[in-house]
Amino acid sequence: MTNDLFLRACRRLPVGRTPVWMMRQAGRYLPEYRAVRARHDFLTMCRTPELASEVTVQPVEIVGVDAAIIFSDILVVPEAMGMRLAMQESAGPRLSPPLRSSADVRALKDPDPEKDLRYVMEALGAARRALAGRVPLIGFSGSPWTLACYMVEGGGSASYGNIKRMMLDDPALLASLLERLEVAVRRYLEAQIAAGAQAVQIFDTWGGILDPEHYRKFSLEGMFRIVSTMRREGVPVIVFSRGAGHALKELASIGADVLSLDWTVDIGRARQDTGGNVALQGNLDPSYLLASPESIRGEVRSILKKYGRGPGHVFNLGHGIMPEVSVENARALVRAVQEESPAYHA
Amino acid sequence: MTNDLFLRACRRLPVGRTPVWMMRQAGRYLPEYRAVRARHDFLTMCRTPELASEVTVQPVEIVGVDAAIIFSDILVVPEAMGMRLAMQESAGPRLSPPLRSSADVRALKDPDPEKDLRYVMEALGAARRALAGRVPLIGFSGSPWTLACYMVEGGGSASYGNIKRMMLDDPALLASLLERLEVAVRRYLEAQIAAGAQAVQIFDTWGGILDPEHYRKFSLEGMFRIVSTMRREGVPVIVFSRGAGHALKELASIGADVLSLDWTVDIGRARQDTGGNVALQGNLDPSYLLASPESIRGEVRSILKKYGRGPGHVFNLGHGIMPEVSVENARALVRAVQEESPAYHA
Repeated sequence: MTNDLFLRACRRLPVGRTPVWMMRQAGRYLPEYRAVRARHDFLTMCRTPELASEVTVQPVEIVGVDAAIIFSDILVVPEAMGMRLAMQESAGPRLSPPLRSSADVRALKDPDPEKDLRYVMEALGAARRALAGRVPLIGFSGSPWTLACYMVEGGGSASYGNIKRMMLDDPALLASLLERLEVAVRRYLEAQIAAGAQAVQIFDTWGGILDPEHYRKFSLEGMFRIVSTMRREGVPVIVFSRGAGHALKELASIGADVLSLDWTVDIGRARQDTGGNVALQGNLDPSYLLASPESIRGEVRSILKKYGRGPGHVFNLGHGIMPEVSVENARALVRAVQEESPAYHA
Repeated sequence: MTNDLFLRACRRLPVGRTPVWMMRQAGRYLPEYRAVRARHDFLTMCRTPELASEVTVQPVEIVGVDAAIIFSDILVVPEAMGMRLAMQESAGPRLSPPLRSSADVRALKDPDPEKDLRYVMEALGAARRALAGRVPLIGFSGSPWTLACYMVEGGGSASYGNIKRMMLDDPALLASLLERLEVAVRRYLEAQIAAGAQAVQIFDTWGGILDPEHYRKFSLEGMFRIVSTMRREGVPVIVFSRGAGHALKELASIGADVLSLDWTVDIGRARQDTGGNVALQGNLDPSYLLASPESIRGEVRSILKKYGRGPGHVFNLGHGIMPEVSVENARALVRAVQEESPAYHA
């Protein structure tokens, strides 16, 4: 591999500089992405390995990130379980019909990722070939809790009131759904690794909407069981539990190699609290990419300084890059990490 | 005063049971509120003391809460500073034109609350008379940071990208706006106390969108200066900095009497971390009021147990009550606190 900074940082091995990539880096802020998107709808891009591969590689070539992440969506798993998935740019994703009863949960399929999500495996293969060893390729899945949120609500929600009501009034039903999802997510991640993913990230986007007690029971424990039982073949596992800064110590002990932090966490304090047991990924506020390149550099410097000297840091945003960001500013972030970080690895 | 449980709990004095009220308790979940709202628009209700007083008292009589909070909106302060305010039920509040330049900030008025927000003072007086000492009356204001968010964005925002760009690219401009707001908020709270508010709450609704370093500088410090310089006449000050669970220890030291917690904080851990220096208010997930009365009782029990024995707890939600909640369930919450809490004060 030409550039293995990302994988070395995930394993907390010495590096010459801090690697950097951005969540949602294959996305709408890139004119080259929008050109592909203008000709194909979002799900067609996910399902067509050449298209998915093309946009996966774009940020490596255009912005110069140190890792690629396969272009896909976490909701392909509920779709493979039998739900109808529709993506509307304005209204957000819809899954129908929403799951509300034990009959709904029983009716779900247990997907075979090699068959039901074959197109993701083929996209990974195509992207590996297109990358040709330039940088590592990351696979991903939603967490069981986060997928359950979309499946019970039928899409995004302001309050996630339906799944929270289910959690309190019928916890056994929710547990049965989460069990099904645990198996599906574990198999899906294993299949992605077999298909060429060199790291995998679990996106627990909605873990942070729970109070700490329910978070542990309904989000964290499922991720723990997945991470501790999956065949990993030495591939690093990254966990991103957005808004779960209250549970960093516990998150650091589920067996993941890397914790991805949102920007409400002080990464220096997180490093102390997690005692060097995991690498840390993050955590620039994505809105800061709307500011000037000089301001972006200042904030990059601030995060590098908070993390401090030594290995185990993967620079990233605290959440996905916004469509409004200019390519120039995305490049400014990458350049700032490249130029400012070597001092912390000397 | 017939029922002074709330004020005693704010001061960490012994009580027979834990008092309870709900943020946004004078709101759309009440049919009696909707009846008034059907005849008058939102801002007319704010500006008409008899109407504001009427809906302020409703939850005391209908749901049985232990405190009333004056019906109003935090955005009446930007309006009093010269901005145009419009409330649309669907699109949310709009302030226009949004502040973007130093000329925009200089053009703001320094409001005299006794004159420019006279109608709030009159509403407080009317509500005090209508309450007739049954329960205490709470006044409130937005924090300078939170008001600045709305003023710079021109309303709510998904990313608050404009104010964050201003914060990084022109921090002096943002500081000048925050200074103006600090003075306005301090005077506004002092005027509310003079007009009869028996406690005041500062709503820092958007403190939690900041990384910890910028939170301290642009949100926390302004609240500290307000709380530590305002004439309080012995009136308790409550601070609610939503999403700022990362800064509880610092929040506990700004001089407020009560910290209001959102539901992502373990209230038992918060009590430990803040060392008994403040009372704590909260912190049931407002979505839980969509569950059954039995489930609500279970969650109330869980929070009471986490807080533990002794004074200094005001039961509340972790954010405002949702319009979809039934009155029956709001009553179930109040009843559960009334019946389950005495054991912790024996």
